[in-house]
Amino acid sequence: MGKIASKYLKVHPFKIVEEGYHYERHMVSESLFSLSNEFMGVRAFFEEASDAASLRGTFFNGFYDYASKIHHSGYKGIPSRTHFMVNSPDFLKVKLVFDGKEFNFNEELIRNFYRELDFRTGLYTRSYIIKIAHNKEIKLIFERILDMEHPNLCQQRLTFEPIGEAAIDCELTFIIDHHIEHGGDGEHIEKLDDHAVYFTKFTHQLLRISDQLKINGKTTPHRHIKFAVKNDSYVFERTLFLDVKKELQALELYQDGKLHFQEPVFDSFDATLAHNKAFYQAVFETSDIEISGDDEDQQGIRYCIFQLANTYHGLSPHHNIGAKGLTGIAYSGHAFWDSETYCLPFYLFNNHEAAKNLILYRYNTLDAARKRARDLDCDGACFPIATLNGEEACDLWQHASCQFQPTTAVVYALWHYYMVTGDQELLLNEGLEIIIEACKFLLSRGQWDPTHQHFGFHGVMGPDEFKMFVSHNTYTNYMAKFAFEFLFELINDYHVDLTKYQINDGFVGEIKNAATHMVILYDPKTKLYEQHDGYYKMPHLDVDTIPVTDFPLYHHWTYDRIYRYDMIKQPDVLMFIFLFMSQFSLSVKQANYEFYEPRCIHESSLSPSVHSILASELGKDQEALDFFGFASRLDLDDYNRNTKEGLHLTSIAAAWLNVVYGFGGLRSDGKILVIAPKKPTRWSKYSFKILYQGAIIKVLVTSKEVSLKASKKVKIKIYDKLVTLKENVPYQTSL
Amino acid sequence: MGKIASKYLKVHPFKIVEEGYHYERHMVSESLFSLSNEFMGVRAFFEEASDAASLRGTFFNGFYDYASKIHHSGYKGIPSRTHFMVNSPDFLKVKLVFDGKEFNFNEELIRNFYRELDFRTGLYTRSYIIKIAHNKEIKLIFERILDMEHPNLCQQRLTFEPIGEAAIDCELTFIIDHHIEHGGDGEHIEKLDDHAVYFTKFTHQLLRISDQLKINGKTTPHRHIKFAVKNDSYVFERTLFLDVKKELQALELYQDGKLHFQEPVFDSFDATLAHNKAFYQAVFETSDIEISGDDEDQQGIRYCIFQLANTYHGLSPHHNIGAKGLTGIAYSGHAFWDSETYCLPFYLFNNHEAAKNLILYRYNTLDAARKRARDLDCDGACFPIATLNGEEACDLWQHASCQFQPTTAVVYALWHYYMVTGDQELLLNEGLEIIIEACKFLLSRGQWDPTHQHFGFHGVMGPDEFKMFVSHNTYTNYMAKFAFEFLFELINDYHVDLTKYQINDGFVGEIKNAATHMVILYDPKTKLYEQHDGYYKMPHLDVDTIPVTDFPLYHHWTYDRIYRYDMIKQPDVLMFIFLFMSQFSLSVKQANYEFYEPRCIHESSLSPSVHSILASELGKDQEALDFFGFASRLDLDDYNRNTKEGLHLTSIAAAWLNVVYGFGGLRSDGKILVIAPKKPTRWSKYSFKILYQGAIIKVLVTSKEVSLKASKKVKIKIYDKLVTLKENVPYQTSL
Repeated sequence: MGKIASKYLKVHPFKIVEEGYHYERHMVSESLFSLSNEFMGVRAFFEEASDAASLRGTFFNGFYDYASKIHHSGYKGIPSRTHFMVNSPDFLKVKLVFDGKEFNFNEELIRNFYRELDFRTGLYTRSYIIKIAHNKEIKLIFERILDMEHPNLCQQRLTFEPIGEAAIDCELTFIIDHHIEHGGDGEHIEKLDDHAVYFTKFTHQLLRISDQLKINGKTTPHRHIKFAVKNDSYVFERTLFLDVKKELQALELYQDGKLHFQEPVFDSFDATLAHNKAFYQAVFETSDIEISGDDEDQQGIRYCIFQLANTYHGLSPHHNIGAKGLTGIAYSGHAFWDSETYCLPFYLFNNHEAAKNLILYRYNTLDAARKRARDLDCDGACFPIATLNGEEACDLWQHASCQFQPTTAVVYALWHYYMVTGDQELLLNEGLEIIIEACKFLLSRGQWDPTHQHFGFHGVMGPDEFKMFVSHNTYTNYMAKFAFEFLFELINDYHVDLTKYQINDGFVGEIKNAATHMVILYDPKTKLYEQHDGYYKMPHLDVDTIPVTDFPLYHHWTYDRIYRYDMIKQPDVLMFIFLFMSQFSLSVKQANYEFYEPRCIHESSLSPSVHSILASELGKDQEALDFFGFASRLDLDDYNRNTKEGLHLTSIAAAWLNVVYGFGGLRSDGKILVIAPKKPTRWSKYSFKILYQGAIIKVLVTSKEVSLKASKKVKIKIYDKLVTLKENVPYQTSL
Repeated sequence: MGKIASKYLKVHPFKIVEEGYHYERHMVSESLFSLSNEFMGVRAFFEEASDAASLRGTFFNGFYDYASKIHHSGYKGIPSRTHFMVNSPDFLKVKLVFDGKEFNFNEELIRNFYRELDFRTGLYTRSYIIKIAHNKEIKLIFERILDMEHPNLCQQRLTFEPIGEAAIDCELTFIIDHHIEHGGDGEHIEKLDDHAVYFTKFTHQLLRISDQLKINGKTTPHRHIKFAVKNDSYVFERTLFLDVKKELQALELYQDGKLHFQEPVFDSFDATLAHNKAFYQAVFETSDIEISGDDEDQQGIRYCIFQLANTYHGLSPHHNIGAKGLTGIAYSGHAFWDSETYCLPFYLFNNHEAAKNLILYRYNTLDAARKRARDLDCDGACFPIATLNGEEACDLWQHASCQFQPTTAVVYALWHYYMVTGDQELLLNEGLEIIIEACKFLLSRGQWDPTHQHFGFHGVMGPDEFKMFVSHNTYTNYMAKFAFEFLFELINDYHVDLTKYQINDGFVGEIKNAATHMVILYDPKTKLYEQHDGYYKMPHLDVDTIPVTDFPLYHHWTYDRIYRYDMIKQPDVLMFIFLFMSQFSLSVKQANYEFYEPRCIHESSLSPSVHSILASELGKDQEALDFFGFASRLDLDDYNRNTKEGLHLTSIAAAWLNVVYGFGGLRSDGKILVIAPKKPTRWSKYSFKILYQGAIIKVLVTSKEVSLKASKKVKIKIYDKLVTLKENVPYQTSL
């Protein structure tokens, strides 16, 4: 955990602010000041020319292409071609000419550089003063905002403000640049015609870019404008309407006249600003976290909530949450099992529709998961490790063919969703079909031992990706047992019509039998779960002896070396304990935490938060704080030195978990919701809000007491005590 | 073992013969009638044009290129670029024109097709009669031979024989064609200039082809000849002198005048024939096997001896034996650990110089093995799974990074060589350096368990390639323990100067300690060795239930499915028992054979012979014969339906083992050589010869007795009895 902050932003409770230009952070800022509204995402790249290394990224959720390279690995069951969220045209680009000279941003030519991103509006503002010649200066203000109500809209505003007396001749050209290299894979966007219609190289999805430009409030058809700035400002307001057609072979349908774009509807910059104010007000109304005593933590956690709400808020059941959201090409825009395990809880406690849509995304890709199961010589449906369109996009065999966390996570998500929302409709319709298909897969992939007494999974990689092709990974077995038992319960409780799902009593008997005989390597004496069969016999490595220069290990150690120690990448036994916190005793948690934590190197950014939550429950306050250390400011302080590639969206979700489940003590895996807060020493007080059974519950934690107030009558447990909170009547208890 | 013969050749004790043309076997014949003389190999492709699918293959030992494709797998330690034996120019090609019409071989135009390959000369003859027009015929005889004494020489003889009265106008053009596609990787041979100098695309090795042509005994400078055949035959004798420069960047050295080709020396066809007669006489003098009672077995085993002697006879310590010898591009010409485990014994018992050179090949690639060890984050030297030039050419991670059979096999080979030859010089010079480097590697790759009481190998794939990344594969541990103990013995017995090898007493102590605490999973109660830690708990699969259509499994099952059963690809526990036959009791052999054989699917062509040898010792005569069934005629009867790709050279070596170690009962792993023959029921009698301690020992086995005769006094054990064979005095004992 030797991670060190790298700070350069100003602290503010509702903003991030950069004062003065930080050349070496150019791309980090591009990520941090990113905007997204679930439908699209725009990195904070400069509109104007600049020499700094840059990733001019604009992305649309589900707008993707296949890789040019096809690699036949020789392994049956491994995808030969990956796919990725495509980097779309740069539709915000401008060319600037001052006094006849083309402008290229350069630190030495400018002063008073300033930028900010406001969490209450999603308005991104950047400004600086350019020295054109001796005593000749001009101020430029770039504003940008994505509309949270009308997601097709992106607003761009450029203001040219005179400084001093001398007139400056200006030229401004708006450009749509689609010549964007996608990583090492060449260009993937081609232009169809003169009407700004673009298509992806292999999937033939379509993007149409329409815009409207106003100069000082007056619409103009021109995109190349010459003007002189002397006494008054020039304001260019450009509204972009972006329409995406994601149908397969949309290009051909469009050319055949079978598919049409929407009529663009333009709106003003100020209208968008108003929409967004309302949107963020609602977000913070149900999910704000207030922290007193550490302004950086305050800024950090609000930034997390802001970015989580931006990336995903349930606009469409065909969207998911990429590991980097819509802020970079790293991880190819793919969604992982992070969506269900790390991100879902945030939405479960503030936006049930979003939570539901996140689950429905899996339902909408169920056919691809069925095909994937066939590819793996199995029945049912296997959800991919990494995907945009439902197909497996990971071409690393040990992950794609041997990790079944995504499949069990989807079942877990349905269960968790039902526990929190009580929504039977989703559970018994799409949910049941998913669960049955998942269980069919798990049953066909699992195996009986030679004595036919023990069921379990062989040849798997659990959450700890430093263990390859093991038998009886306890996480995998535990989650599969849970899936089988949950399905068995559903079938019994709701008298499910088996024939509808092409299953019979034999199948039901088999999953019951498999669940009953599932190998769970637990020793009641030590209270330890063995991570997999044989884990205790693995050679031990004192992880503290690994030189810092060896990290990340994937780049410095051979795979076989990484895989053959008891060193752990991220929580594995502790992961299922975390997912079912209410079901394990404190002593079991303690034994396993103390055994496994020292063996974990936390190479995943998702790892520390889970450890912090457990440490908090175990009363290890300092450890909890140490692990929390970088959770909320992982990107703001660039702890992993890779924020330039994009924001760690799923880690941002883990930061929320860290506060609400960790210090807040929320437990949502029992029949009744539990809140059991602790107060971290470095905060004087804090509060968080959740939406539960229609009530917004605000939990305020001070040094002495916990105070709760619900907007509606609701029954919960506070610590060990069952409490009915009355509408708007505060309830206090001592800490 | 449901393998079925596919016969079309005539049976002859010293020849293979094809009467009549077999279109559908065109490529099979190309492989079977292949010639090689270790320096080069030539498939039996037609000189003249033909429509049949063909692999026009000419190969030079160690003449190789890198693949065009570079694949960065993202795995540290995996080669991103493989290399392969390059398919060289077709220097035997001719264009034929009869009566003005270009000839293209076609079954319907010809009669009396005949070809043969004689094991006593290596002469390959092919002939047929062409019908040019009504009542107009001509006979063509193609002869081809590679000189076994002057390896640069290839002889080609074409005879045009008149049939009937009518004169036929003929045109004959000799062509050197270097436009050869290498698999899917494009052409790899480029022509340098007009003097027939060719070079490989990436390695820049050189090949110069010089030739001399005689027409009816008279030298001509022409290669395009017009002539008429009426009453007399026309005989074209062409001698090719092939010179290869394998230095790295030989092309540049040649262009700088720093490297010169040999002056070609041409010799006559008959001179080559005479050289070869002498060569093969010597081969059969020391290694012939005579079988009475089964003419097919007789032909088969002589074919094996013939091809083994052709492919490799110790010409150079820079040559090795590819899995397909010099007869095809399958397996890329790579040498595997087959060289030491399957091929070496043949040479140990008839050609010590060849045996020595086979080991010296490893010494000559020791630097590449050292580099490979570094690539794997280890010390010492790790010999590659597949190689031509010493570099690892296998790009499958689980094999290249996790199989250490090649490294332990090289140590075993040195020990075996010493046991049989008593040659201390090789052992204590090159040998010791190799063994020390191998042990350094093994010590650094092995690991102690958490209690520091048990040493062994984690994350390995043993000989059974259906088990991936296991701990304590007993074969690997057993062989490493053997290597450590052998080195320890050598150091003590020969007072080795440790400083010379940059080792010290600490290292010696470490290998002793590791050997002492090596995990060997043996249960004295059951007398079973567990294949790896956890093998017994693996799900069981009755291999007889696998549908025949599922084979080969690699093409029909996903990797993870293949890997997660107790099903075995090829001997693993039985392999080390085979390597140390004298050191295991009959009951241990029996227990392990009966446990593991039923779990083995023999997907490797090397598997049945080892099982046959064990079955023979265990008195399971029928099983021994069943397994032997296809050993000696694997290629002649195309049991695996892939002979067209080339001969299974290392399986051919296993066939020799099967007869001599199996039925002959040879045991060479003890201090004294043991011969303990049995007679397979289908043979009335058989004999084999071996060279041992300077004596050629002939062993004749009849129904009643075993009769031995040595060319020199020699002490051996016959069954359990120590016997001194006197020079040329027969010794008899009952069977």
